[in-house]
Amino acid sequence: MSEIRQDPTTEEWVIIARERTKRPHDFVSTQSKPESLAYLPSCPFCPGNEAMTPLETLSYPDKKTQRWQVRAFNNRYPALTPDGSTIRRKENNFFLGMAGIGVHEVIVETPAHNKPIALREDSEVEAVLRSYRQRYNTLSKMPPVKLIIIFKNYGLSAGTSLEHPHSQLVATPVVPKYIRLQYEVATKHYDSTGRCLYSDIVNHELDAGKRIVMETEKFVVFHPFASHQPFETWIVPTIHRACFGNTSVEELKDLAHVLRVVLLKLYQGLNNPDFNYVIDTAPVEDENKNYYLWHMRIIPRLTEVAGFEIGSGININTALPEETAQFMKELKVK
Amino acid sequence: MSEIRQDPTTEEWVIIARERTKRPHDFVSTQSKPESLAYLPSCPFCPGNEAMTPLETLSYPDKKTQRWQVRAFNNRYPALTPDGSTIRRKENNFFLGMAGIGVHEVIVETPAHNKPIALREDSEVEAVLRSYRQRYNTLSKMPPVKLIIIFKNYGLSAGTSLEHPHSQLVATPVVPKYIRLQYEVATKHYDSTGRCLYSDIVNHELDAGKRIVMETEKFVVFHPFASHQPFETWIVPTIHRACFGNTSVEELKDLAHVLRVVLLKLYQGLNNPDFNYVIDTAPVEDENKNYYLWHMRIIPRLTEVAGFEIGSGININTALPEETAQFMKELKVK
Repeated sequence: MSEIRQDPTTEEWVIIARERTKRPHDFVSTQSKPESLAYLPSCPFCPGNEAMTPLETLSYPDKKTQRWQVRAFNNRYPALTPDGSTIRRKENNFFLGMAGIGVHEVIVETPAHNKPIALREDSEVEAVLRSYRQRYNTLSKMPPVKLIIIFKNYGLSAGTSLEHPHSQLVATPVVPKYIRLQYEVATKHYDSTGRCLYSDIVNHELDAGKRIVMETEKFVVFHPFASHQPFETWIVPTIHRACFGNTSVEELKDLAHVLRVVLLKLYQGLNNPDFNYVIDTAPVEDENKNYYLWHMRIIPRLTEVAGFEIGSGININTALPEETAQFMKELKVK
Repeated sequence: MSEIRQDPTTEEWVIIARERTKRPHDFVSTQSKPESLAYLPSCPFCPGNEAMTPLETLSYPDKKTQRWQVRAFNNRYPALTPDGSTIRRKENNFFLGMAGIGVHEVIVETPAHNKPIALREDSEVEAVLRSYRQRYNTLSKMPPVKLIIIFKNYGLSAGTSLEHPHSQLVATPVVPKYIRLQYEVATKHYDSTGRCLYSDIVNHELDAGKRIVMETEKFVVFHPFASHQPFETWIVPTIHRACFGNTSVEELKDLAHVLRVVLLKLYQGLNNPDFNYVIDTAPVEDENKNYYLWHMRIIPRLTEVAGFEIGSGININTALPEETAQFMKELKVK
């Protein structure tokens, strides 16, 4: 029999479909990605092609090579741009709209065209995380910016066509409904318990134990009770901060290691699957409230969303998070 | 510059990304689906293989062939099954879950293995819609059933691996959060205006005119102001009913024609794209309230959801609904 579980952060239900359940190793990709070179002359993100990218907003030098290690610049095809006003307008006195004001940047994570996070040194990953935080802290001070989403699309099915390792940052002029919903749920929990919902979740996951993938001093990694997708992975800090921009150097150092190890486990355990990851952080105006706890979510792209999900908003997860977490936990990597 | 629009039914924002906007004909699929035969001996849904499918729940005879025209049966790999209770349980006194109680059926739409809706007669489509309504009205009377989602997945990227034309029906024992959200928004509108939000949307779309695809006496077809995806298409009835199960024979007859024509326009205009459609209908206990208006949503699978959408819940739509609606309206089909 299937089981229905409620995501405590959104109150969304998830069907854990036992009749269809696959074992963790059934998700191993049978198609390998083609091998590629460390440098591609035609790639706009490869060193030497800096002129092919728009306005640079950040560049970290690599002490060894005397060239850049990480660089950020405006997206050539931005979803949002910094011009315009946040004044709402109405079409036909009914439909609400506004200008697409905001920021859309690309962060190139490494000069090496063929080096996914899983195969880097911790220090290289740390530089990427520092660049995220720096761009976050610069852009969150722009008046129209209400929320900053930092994310990575890895692989074709995850929505990227450019192979060179990169992340993206979008600063929006509105707080999305989906985030408002999470805040409503978290605030209700805070009001009725006096505690942060996300800290409570981490504590209950630690008590339950069976969905924990790894633990360090500063982070807990688990597959959530109501995982929406197979191998959905959360990385949650033990130090309470609503906002990713407030993280310390030590936290980012630890996170770099944790993120690399988790992605290496996916890389080795599931044969380098496509994935998205996203940093969930408080809206800019709620950065210092105790209702929220920033965290990272990794979503490997192993299944398709179909009509049922579109109609109901309920995901059907064909994996048991207890089993996938155990699989990930036991996987030995360097 | 991009534009941000608010979906009036969910209060979700959508980015209409002008910098990335494609013209309607850019969405024409360059990969054609392989041709297939009208009958496949190994297909469990083809006539003669009825013993390969679980318990039959409906069968409409075809007067010409003396065999079935439409048949429904339990899904062999059900997401939900009718056993168990709706009692909620808690894991670790915190995480909420319950048994996966419900119904999951498959509706085979035609004996012909290779005949999509776009290429059928109106009367054949009408029989499918009648089967939907009949199964809806039977299952909605089962006590644990709180919502019934009727949907179709067409093509691999839309989540189906079985080519033989079929739809699915899932009866859930909970009202999903996503539906609760829509109700909250619709109820607020009803309270502050005295009118149904969905009827108001249709009227404003008719006034605006520029996003209308087609109109019959009983249905209006349009691409919504805040379309979440390129070519998202709504078919909304002019007769006010919250519940699809209450539709009349005449409405289903008209809907069959409208649905076939819209799908034929997609078939011809975009070279037979993958798509999902879903019937949005009121929760069973709200079937007779005036807050809601049942309707159909067709979502062609033309773009990938990526990290930004996962993090923010905001879709980036790379097509302008005014342009895609015009394209669909002008497309001449039989």
